[in-house]
Amino acid sequence: MALVVQKFGGTSVGSIERIRSVARRCLAAQRRGDDVVVIVSAMSGETNRLLGLAHQLTTVPDAREMDALAATGEQVAAALTALAIQAEGGRARSLLGHQVRIRTDGAFTKARIQAIDGTKIASTVAAGEIAVVAGFQGVSESGDITTLGRGGSDTSAVAIAAAIGADACEIYTDVDGVYTTDPNVCPSATKIDRISFEEMLELASLGAKVLQIRSVEIAMKYGVPIHVRSSFSDAEGTWVTAEDQSLERVVVAGVAYDKSEARVAVIGLTDTPSTAADLFGAIADKNIAVDMIIQGASRGAQDETDITFTIARSDLDRAKPEIEAIARERLGAREVRYDSAIAKVSIVGLGMRSHAGVAAKMFRLLADEGIPIQAISTSEIKISCLVAVKYTELAVRALHDGFGLGERPKT
Amino acid sequence: MALVVQKFGGTSVGSIERIRSVARRCLAAQRRGDDVVVIVSAMSGETNRLLGLAHQLTTVPDAREMDALAATGEQVAAALTALAIQAEGGRARSLLGHQVRIRTDGAFTKARIQAIDGTKIASTVAAGEIAVVAGFQGVSESGDITTLGRGGSDTSAVAIAAAIGADACEIYTDVDGVYTTDPNVCPSATKIDRISFEEMLELASLGAKVLQIRSVEIAMKYGVPIHVRSSFSDAEGTWVTAEDQSLERVVVAGVAYDKSEARVAVIGLTDTPSTAADLFGAIADKNIAVDMIIQGASRGAQDETDITFTIARSDLDRAKPEIEAIARERLGAREVRYDSAIAKVSIVGLGMRSHAGVAAKMFRLLADEGIPIQAISTSEIKISCLVAVKYTELAVRALHDGFGLGERPKT
Repeated sequence: MALVVQKFGGTSVGSIERIRSVARRCLAAQRRGDDVVVIVSAMSGETNRLLGLAHQLTTVPDAREMDALAATGEQVAAALTALAIQAEGGRARSLLGHQVRIRTDGAFTKARIQAIDGTKIASTVAAGEIAVVAGFQGVSESGDITTLGRGGSDTSAVAIAAAIGADACEIYTDVDGVYTTDPNVCPSATKIDRISFEEMLELASLGAKVLQIRSVEIAMKYGVPIHVRSSFSDAEGTWVTAEDQSLERVVVAGVAYDKSEARVAVIGLTDTPSTAADLFGAIADKNIAVDMIIQGASRGAQDETDITFTIARSDLDRAKPEIEAIARERLGAREVRYDSAIAKVSIVGLGMRSHAGVAAKMFRLLADEGIPIQAISTSEIKISCLVAVKYTELAVRALHDGFGLGERPKT
Repeated sequence: MALVVQKFGGTSVGSIERIRSVARRCLAAQRRGDDVVVIVSAMSGETNRLLGLAHQLTTVPDAREMDALAATGEQVAAALTALAIQAEGGRARSLLGHQVRIRTDGAFTKARIQAIDGTKIASTVAAGEIAVVAGFQGVSESGDITTLGRGGSDTSAVAIAAAIGADACEIYTDVDGVYTTDPNVCPSATKIDRISFEEMLELASLGAKVLQIRSVEIAMKYGVPIHVRSSFSDAEGTWVTAEDQSLERVVVAGVAYDKSEARVAVIGLTDTPSTAADLFGAIADKNIAVDMIIQGASRGAQDETDITFTIARSDLDRAKPEIEAIARERLGAREVRYDSAIAKVSIVGLGMRSHAGVAAKMFRLLADEGIPIQAISTSEIKISCLVAVKYTELAVRALHDGFGLGERPKT
């Protein structure tokens, strides 16, 4: 007997028929002897419908009212799910953010959870009922309804699992787990059976959209095992857990790509100790988020340096005049080049910490396909390369199969 | 400068465009110098949509979950109305039942308000904001969301007006006030400018559907003047207030009718002191609600009596075997007759307390049209007659015009 949190996304509760099968799945777990807490998102389409109503009224809606509005989506889904469980002969009770007391800060539309009172969920479960908690929502200290931002239901689920000491947090979704890479790009992609929190964090932040990155952070912090699995089957999905020393570790766990960035190359900067600080300090002041930063050695006698960085492509138009002003006028750069036809391709794996030559192998695999590398960035468990966007799929397939991910990975 | 509660029903907030005009109306009142508290119902159709979803899952839904589900309708309307006020340049804040703390008992789907904490509304208004309160909903002592039953938003509005000491409670609706009778039945029906709480109570309970009867009871108890008016015009509607001794009182304020009842005549009962108590005690035990009760004098030597009463027509099929068992088998009645083709026609007016002959005039007006009276029941300010249902409209018109209501009533 275990205490299990099950989270169902908008697609999984997207119709009355689907809600009914969610109810059956919860009851099956209860019948196996588990205590069950369910977290639901809004029925798919509902959040957009609600926000659409608001946007008919105003283009700059008040964040507090948007949260009060959007939170109804999860409230409806929670009540319907509780009714569905009852209709299937079970006992259930819906609980809202302010009823559980999922306490957040007051940052409407992107609130962060500060504390969760697990007593109401615990007493519900202790009474033999399934607790159906509305995801995505919380309550501020002043009693205002807040929401955690898009995808916040994953965060709700993991945070609740941590608060009540659940044995596992199951994230039900419309895919059957986390894949070694995007199956649409690489047909040989395989489902990962087990992956560490650290690897999942890198994969999530690199574009694998299965799990919200914040939920993985919380799971890692509190040691909550996550099980990502399909809401349409009973098959095992992917377990995201703490690093397991006893297992033979794969070197590379997955390959990710991201086409949402643009490259900015600032050429011919005078190389002083404060050049990078001046440049990125000024860019940060303009509220432009920077991802990769690469600076090579300065070019000897000329005391000149080049700095390359990436920003979100959607920020490029807004950022260009700011960057020109900073780089050319204030820092005297000779030239600034922009390229939005780029992609970031990354390999992620805990194993690369103890395996030499992983980077070299990555570069070789790309070179063998004739793909020029425009920039490189590495962390302890990740290596990212910028390539021309047209090479994205070719690069992903070359890396994926070159690191042996096409075969069923051993975990 | 006044403190005004404005309540808008589902039709008045039935679309984004209508919500916008509600916002303009609230702001106009604020610009005139009033402090404004707005109560909104769910957008028309929304409550039925939500209940429809639940009924796809179960025919006997759990009342607690139905309330959590239905309350979202008003939450959406409140947030959108606050956004609309902001979009028009005003300042507004939505408040839910649990945020105001509209404390109710735990009778889900038909909860009764026990206490309202006016401080949150007061501080909102004191800050120059319009408080937009979700109607229809409250919160139980244990923190569960409750609803007040259909039409409960009127009750919310009047109870909030009482709690915060508002100068008036304006009920915006799709008609321009309370009429002397149903204009669909009697073209000469006129809008009533001013009517007492007592008269409004009798008219509401007799079938005039403009105001929820519970809201009138609360308004009378706390002396909150109600102004029923159209959300589509600025014309004065009907004021429902405490009886005003200084005004020349009309004898009859309005004519109501009700086609929803059925008549039951129990013939040939042995007349003992406990006959009526035995009969109606047993009927009440079967949870059958009785409206009119008429018992004539017993017929001399035979020690026999007849008792006529009315019940809701929708209860008739269920009630028949129960009534047979009680009346014939237990009380030895000779015969029970049922008639569902009847209507109750009533005249209401404070003035009849001090005017003799009103009842006689009513019976004469019906007799002049050849309408047989099947039963009569009177209270201090109301006289009701049962007639065959086919005479309903004829009776209403005869009484309405016979008591001079077709002319503009003097108040």
